[in-house]
Amino acid sequence: MTSLAHPAAAPASVRPSRSAVESVIAELAQEFGPNLLTTAGSTREQHGNTASWLPSEAPDAVVFPQCTADVQKIVRICAAAGVPIIPFGTGTSLEGQINAPFGGICVDTRDMNKVLAVHAEDLDVVVEPGVTRKQLNEYLRDQGLFFPLDPGADAALGGMAATRCSGTNAVRYGTMKDVTLALKVVLANGELMTTGTRAKKSAAGYDLTRLFVGSEGTLGIITELTLKLHGIPEAIAGGICPFPTVEAACNAVIATIQTGIPVARIELLDQLQVKAVNAYSKLDLPEVPLLLVEFHGSEAGVAEQSAHFGEIAQELGGGPFDWATRAEDRTRLWQARHDAYWAAGALRRGTKSVASDVCVPISRLAECVVATQEDIAASNLVAPIVGHVGDGNFHLGLLVDMDDADEVKRAKALLERLVERALAMDGTCTGEHGVGQGKMKYLKAELGAPALAAMAAIKHALDPAGLMNPGKIVPADLVSWT
Amino acid sequence: MTSLAHPAAAPASVRPSRSAVESVIAELAQEFGPNLLTTAGSTREQHGNTASWLPSEAPDAVVFPQCTADVQKIVRICAAAGVPIIPFGTGTSLEGQINAPFGGICVDTRDMNKVLAVHAEDLDVVVEPGVTRKQLNEYLRDQGLFFPLDPGADAALGGMAATRCSGTNAVRYGTMKDVTLALKVVLANGELMTTGTRAKKSAAGYDLTRLFVGSEGTLGIITELTLKLHGIPEAIAGGICPFPTVEAACNAVIATIQTGIPVARIELLDQLQVKAVNAYSKLDLPEVPLLLVEFHGSEAGVAEQSAHFGEIAQELGGGPFDWATRAEDRTRLWQARHDAYWAAGALRRGTKSVASDVCVPISRLAECVVATQEDIAASNLVAPIVGHVGDGNFHLGLLVDMDDADEVKRAKALLERLVERALAMDGTCTGEHGVGQGKMKYLKAELGAPALAAMAAIKHALDPAGLMNPGKIVPADLVSWT
Repeated sequence: MTSLAHPAAAPASVRPSRSAVESVIAELAQEFGPNLLTTAGSTREQHGNTASWLPSEAPDAVVFPQCTADVQKIVRICAAAGVPIIPFGTGTSLEGQINAPFGGICVDTRDMNKVLAVHAEDLDVVVEPGVTRKQLNEYLRDQGLFFPLDPGADAALGGMAATRCSGTNAVRYGTMKDVTLALKVVLANGELMTTGTRAKKSAAGYDLTRLFVGSEGTLGIITELTLKLHGIPEAIAGGICPFPTVEAACNAVIATIQTGIPVARIELLDQLQVKAVNAYSKLDLPEVPLLLVEFHGSEAGVAEQSAHFGEIAQELGGGPFDWATRAEDRTRLWQARHDAYWAAGALRRGTKSVASDVCVPISRLAECVVATQEDIAASNLVAPIVGHVGDGNFHLGLLVDMDDADEVKRAKALLERLVERALAMDGTCTGEHGVGQGKMKYLKAELGAPALAAMAAIKHALDPAGLMNPGKIVPADLVSWT
Repeated sequence: MTSLAHPAAAPASVRPSRSAVESVIAELAQEFGPNLLTTAGSTREQHGNTASWLPSEAPDAVVFPQCTADVQKIVRICAAAGVPIIPFGTGTSLEGQINAPFGGICVDTRDMNKVLAVHAEDLDVVVEPGVTRKQLNEYLRDQGLFFPLDPGADAALGGMAATRCSGTNAVRYGTMKDVTLALKVVLANGELMTTGTRAKKSAAGYDLTRLFVGSEGTLGIITELTLKLHGIPEAIAGGICPFPTVEAACNAVIATIQTGIPVARIELLDQLQVKAVNAYSKLDLPEVPLLLVEFHGSEAGVAEQSAHFGEIAQELGGGPFDWATRAEDRTRLWQARHDAYWAAGALRRGTKSVASDVCVPISRLAECVVATQEDIAASNLVAPIVGHVGDGNFHLGLLVDMDDADEVKRAKALLERLVERALAMDGTCTGEHGVGQGKMKYLKAELGAPALAAMAAIKHALDPAGLMNPGKIVPADLVSWT
């Protein structure tokens, strides 16, 4: 359905000429000076490190803008020379979002890390894209407010929006698409666009905010975010709940969601992941499938919800659900949960840790997780499972010996089947990690050719020269470049 | 910033030739027969009736597709001849969304009214676009499920998604952008696109679902929706709470939201609107500013929340908050709330009822409503105020004597100032009614030229011939048609 796309310029589907790159670097060096523009190999390599098994592809240079106007300058300089632009937050994305397959300039928003305004009375905040989630929450704590989204890493909020990320609280507070009120975005032509206002809802035209959330830098660079906040709950209750099987744990999740208990977090760790977490975080959790559960509300509310969940767990053969409202215990547990990725890696030193996620309708969760575990065993692979199961979303942490060609082959085949299984259950190839380079090949199977053609048409409409983070999300060959 | 748009074909910015229209009508007549294709004046006029003071602009014919394949046929026939296509649900939009300024074929989805699948275990439902919100809730009731969004009218779900509507429950359950999991959309070239899966969240590419929610038929025609459902709450408590002033009522709303009480509905009726409702719905509500409030949850939860809200109201000079859990009382009250539009109209018979909405950050709500009331009085106009104030969203129901040119002029000026006031408070020109024809002129002031250019580029990318509901949202002169 290429008829939807109306190309006007040649895309950066091939690496620009060395002279184009060199002239851009020279111009940027003049603008930004040696402290804010570097071509040092180590810095470039660090910015092309994909935290996955995708080959790293370093940019030609890394620039550190200090403000939105700097980003506009960079984009205009690159656009004039036909050189790709790759935005960079903390580099913790998992599907190669920050790779530079065609070279180009990496725009690291590290120094754009100011909280610009807190509107406590409206429960919103305006931040620069380099502010990280932990930095924001430290900033907010004194005001009794918090920002709920928490990917494992202490990611930058610009990158979190660009990847449409979520985390353990999404079951209650939503994903980045739900908490982002408005963005400022530098477009491919260097102009600065505002996508929304601070109104909590709007029906004013196309939803540009949601279009840019999850666009992974392929449509523009986010330089400011207005985000929803929440009051720190009066009471938080949480704890761990053991189950005899992963299936029983998943069924407890399903029953909890179906019953409408407003759970704030409900996370699955399979037996292997529990072992990994115990070893890595020096804990002594029972080494069986666990749910980590948390409730937010009034004292009476969280007590009622905890008791209700405990009954569900018991009916399904799990429990006891030991819950507490002591912050110290909870903090240690959730830090261990957030360290799951690194804990898994430590299970098998010297291997590559490959994290992949899928998301299915909750009724299929138990079936999907169990079939995946069986597949892991049959494939003779090591891959703990951990997941934001309240949303039907779970992750494999595959540990792959990259020197063992047969193991790499089996691992790739396993991940293919993981996605196929999720799609067959009317699920998605990624719940929160995004597409990047790693999952481009699944979009057509998931949504069909017309959706991919529409994405290509939108990409082309907003980035006619194909310079914004090329080689991600939309395959270049789908756009009818002329 | 027209450089983002890359036109390929001439748009339907002028009415197509009579012969093109006649040939399309002849072809449609052959396909659909006289029962499903009509050019009768009364039907055409009914389909161009805008429920506003915008002049009605009837389509050239109305066709009633029975299925998605019918819609594809219609689009292909119209596209081949360059004739505009205007989708139609129940015709209850308020900003001229269904007008046919360039003529064309109205596609009335009335007969596409089947509930295709209920997945109770996943809390989702798949429906055709002609299913109305009341029809859906009647269908679901036996299963203990409900769909929360409730515009005043018994609107069709396809139109509700197209307009990004919300209603009284949005403060708790979100708007159509939040409850729509996936759409099937017939694109401008007749192809059928799927925008998502039944997974509760996804990071798989551009958010096509959210792009089409709120696109008002200008990018394609929605032919299937997958929507989130909720379990009917264990307990519902609600009631009315009087306040001495609108300001006190708004301040109670602000305090309730800031405290994090999970209110399900919190609606403001100003004194004049209460009078109108009493007269129209035969009620005897106290004729002072009122909040209609409802809580959903467990028995203990709603009691706790009701008590908490009652305390807030009292502190701000309001109350008593008489709440009850009896369904009969609540139903009557909410029907009266939903009839507010018609009740307002009955205040001043023979006038045109012009409903307009804005939405502001909640901290500015009291100030905005009070300033608007003062403006109404100074303008010597009649305009009750009613609103989904938990979101900072409120409506004027202006009653205008259309034969009084001076009054019309004053009314138009009032609405201009209403929007200006909202924008100056970092709000939006429409919280839920959409842009249609009526609010196109405000988009640039709200979001700026780059956002409007981006919308034009997207419009052009997905509808290069400009045939999908032309003359709505994106001004044709912004697209650099060549």
